[in-house]
Amino acid sequence: MTPPRPLHFAAFVMNTASHITHGLWRAPDGDQIRFNDLDLWVDLAKRLEAGGFDAIFFADVVGLYGDYDGGWEHHAKLGLQIPSNDPLVILSALASHTEHLGLAFTAGPIQEAPFNFARRVSTLDHASNGRIAWNIVTSALENGWRNFGHDGLLAHDDRYAWADEYLDVLYKLWEGSWDDGALLADRASGVYADPTKIHKIHHVSERYRVEGPHLVAPSPQRTPLLFQAGSSPVGRDFAARNAEAQFIVSPDPENARKLIDDTRRLVEGHGRHRDDLKFFQGLSFVVGSTEEEARRKEADLEERIDIDGMIAHFGGSLGIDLGAYEADTPIDLIHTEGGQSGLAWLRESVDGRTPTLGDLTRLRARGTRVVGTPEQIADRLAQWRDAGVDGVNVINQVIPGSYDELIEHVFPVLRERGLARDGYAEGTLRRKLFGHDKLPDRHPAAQYRGAFAAAEVAA
Amino acid sequence: MTPPRPLHFAAFVMNTASHITHGLWRAPDGDQIRFNDLDLWVDLAKRLEAGGFDAIFFADVVGLYGDYDGGWEHHAKLGLQIPSNDPLVILSALASHTEHLGLAFTAGPIQEAPFNFARRVSTLDHASNGRIAWNIVTSALENGWRNFGHDGLLAHDDRYAWADEYLDVLYKLWEGSWDDGALLADRASGVYADPTKIHKIHHVSERYRVEGPHLVAPSPQRTPLLFQAGSSPVGRDFAARNAEAQFIVSPDPENARKLIDDTRRLVEGHGRHRDDLKFFQGLSFVVGSTEEEARRKEADLEERIDIDGMIAHFGGSLGIDLGAYEADTPIDLIHTEGGQSGLAWLRESVDGRTPTLGDLTRLRARGTRVVGTPEQIADRLAQWRDAGVDGVNVINQVIPGSYDELIEHVFPVLRERGLARDGYAEGTLRRKLFGHDKLPDRHPAAQYRGAFAAAEVAA
Repeated sequence: MTPPRPLHFAAFVMNTASHITHGLWRAPDGDQIRFNDLDLWVDLAKRLEAGGFDAIFFADVVGLYGDYDGGWEHHAKLGLQIPSNDPLVILSALASHTEHLGLAFTAGPIQEAPFNFARRVSTLDHASNGRIAWNIVTSALENGWRNFGHDGLLAHDDRYAWADEYLDVLYKLWEGSWDDGALLADRASGVYADPTKIHKIHHVSERYRVEGPHLVAPSPQRTPLLFQAGSSPVGRDFAARNAEAQFIVSPDPENARKLIDDTRRLVEGHGRHRDDLKFFQGLSFVVGSTEEEARRKEADLEERIDIDGMIAHFGGSLGIDLGAYEADTPIDLIHTEGGQSGLAWLRESVDGRTPTLGDLTRLRARGTRVVGTPEQIADRLAQWRDAGVDGVNVINQVIPGSYDELIEHVFPVLRERGLARDGYAEGTLRRKLFGHDKLPDRHPAAQYRGAFAAAEVAA
Repeated sequence: MTPPRPLHFAAFVMNTASHITHGLWRAPDGDQIRFNDLDLWVDLAKRLEAGGFDAIFFADVVGLYGDYDGGWEHHAKLGLQIPSNDPLVILSALASHTEHLGLAFTAGPIQEAPFNFARRVSTLDHASNGRIAWNIVTSALENGWRNFGHDGLLAHDDRYAWADEYLDVLYKLWEGSWDDGALLADRASGVYADPTKIHKIHHVSERYRVEGPHLVAPSPQRTPLLFQAGSSPVGRDFAARNAEAQFIVSPDPENARKLIDDTRRLVEGHGRHRDDLKFFQGLSFVVGSTEEEARRKEADLEERIDIDGMIAHFGGSLGIDLGAYEADTPIDLIHTEGGQSGLAWLRESVDGRTPTLGDLTRLRARGTRVVGTPEQIADRLAQWRDAGVDGVNVINQVIPGSYDELIEHVFPVLRERGLARDGYAEGTLRRKLFGHDKLPDRHPAAQYRGAFAAAEVAA
């Protein structure tokens, strides 16, 4: 008998009006409408920790989605990720009201100089006793790049080259600038830090020159837990080299298994262990006391979802304006613009008739939706786990209801079956997930440990 | 009889090992040694609010001070602002544990792209219900600039030109991008925001191109309360145009009066009202139940202050390595390097004998130190107030003791005399200080209100 392998659970949220399940902000029991209010997030973090979630995971974008109907009026009307607030700066509040919950945020290289970013993240890793995770993105929205001095989106592979360079600076600051034992804070001798163990990094590369030293003494994790969500070949290779957790959105366990196996081979190819990268599948849940109740709730949910919003989001993330098309437009008429991958699967899913744009977005949501009784949901999650998935990034319909429901009705069944853990392990987020506080020696960041000690000291 | 004019009080702190009063981190009753621990700051914020402080004010630097003894070994040993943590990212924790306390932080243009900075500050202004203040600095340490891709410090006036450009982007985002009433969040109609009231800013200047729109809906203050501390002619003019509060460190009330009168004239010259800028004098306090006890405590304090640290800090901020000189070196021997302004005053202060380097740093600290019984301190503060000072930025010897002492022993006497307020006014930090939430129309930021409404809408 294999030992039970409990899944990890993160709450997938965004500090915005409407994140993914558009239209639901109007629900009377949806509190996300109060997203400007810090109490909403503090309260949610406390509920998640009381319920046993591993982490709260904040998605983010730094610009408008691509046009719909020739502009972004529609996005503003629907609250489609505008307004949206910064996730990083609210984490210390969540840290101060929780003890175990991991705090994951999203950011990319275009936003902030690496020296400043490194310092802010280290400050937060101290403030949270080592519970910070960073979801590394390369920012794929045209408007986002134009908010940061660029003409538009950099080519995909160039964005990853930039991210590599950014990470290189950060690894030097987080892992190499301060040796272990540099911080003494010895009242008796009056020596705060040992200068022979603190080093400038003298980084010089195409985009960056950073002298150092890092201003923050080593935090509990040093480098925060590294999340990544790239699905392109370059993105997956980047994750295989750097990431410790990958956020995936596979349509089903079988596809996930293939993706995970492939990526684990890439991880090994980079000299890391196959288990150094954990996979979090994005899923949403509709829970009923009977299957019929769950199906009724799902039908009600589909009624309330704003299909135009789903289409705008889908097209806007691809940079395709789908606004000219009604939801009942057959996909055949527009697939030349959007590509037709998955069209066969789509056709099959609608019983052979010609699928429409509305079907496409509905089915995309449905593929990651698990509907049923707590027992049925547990059965399905066992399939995801057995496909190699390590955790679930839980997409909500409403905050906090979607998480409350899972915690109250589903987690007890998952715990009985060894599909969810009972109680928290002590220590940092990385220790809870991997059993150690710092990145292992085989991670590329580790190359900088001690690397600057030989250079000139304190000069 | 003039109405009583109570002073405002801010706690002047830094998220670092040793901020100003070097050596005191070793004191058994000093808790700053725990500065990595978020609880230290949360606890301090709660004490300050319970005691009636207006704000907590975080100083900051983004690099090492200039060399001492040929390097920065000495700084690290003494904890002289290294290690140091970012102040911005801990503010949401303080916001979540307080209701009235203003939250002021320091940052400058070299650290972060203006689009990102604007968004983070707006997020925090929402999270704190309008209690954020920003101390605008131009970063004067060589190493700081080399941490951000520069060869070294930009010329002084060029740094202010950059700050002007940075502010211009921020003002457009904070004041011009969203009209009042744009955010509807109307569940019934399903309209989140009115796109005709949200505008791209299309900013183009020498250093910045920022398309917009701002991603955050207007926060309670829109632009955070603006602090500044420049004392050069260019710095004071910058403050006179932009700042709402200026941090000054005058040696005595008479000097303060002259500085304040001069600066208020500059403020009026820029079309603002003379009271649109408030002046916060930096002061520290030694409180005794008798004058003798206070003097004994001061003597004990001077014993414990690390004079080498004070000299290193003084020289390091001027970019002069004073490490080659003993504390008893006569100033005459080194004044050719450091300039001799104030030397006559200094000579007078040491009864006509030749002052030494140690005297210089001791006297600098003493000039802003108020020593005595609560009644004597109240007398002195009345002099500062009558010179035109609006508030005090309270320098600590130890955290939280220096603030506790003031709150417990001095504030009651100040309240009796109308020198400190009793209880908080409701509303934002700006409303508490000025009686209104937003910048007045005569402030330069106000020029962008409605400025983008005429441009193309949502395109």
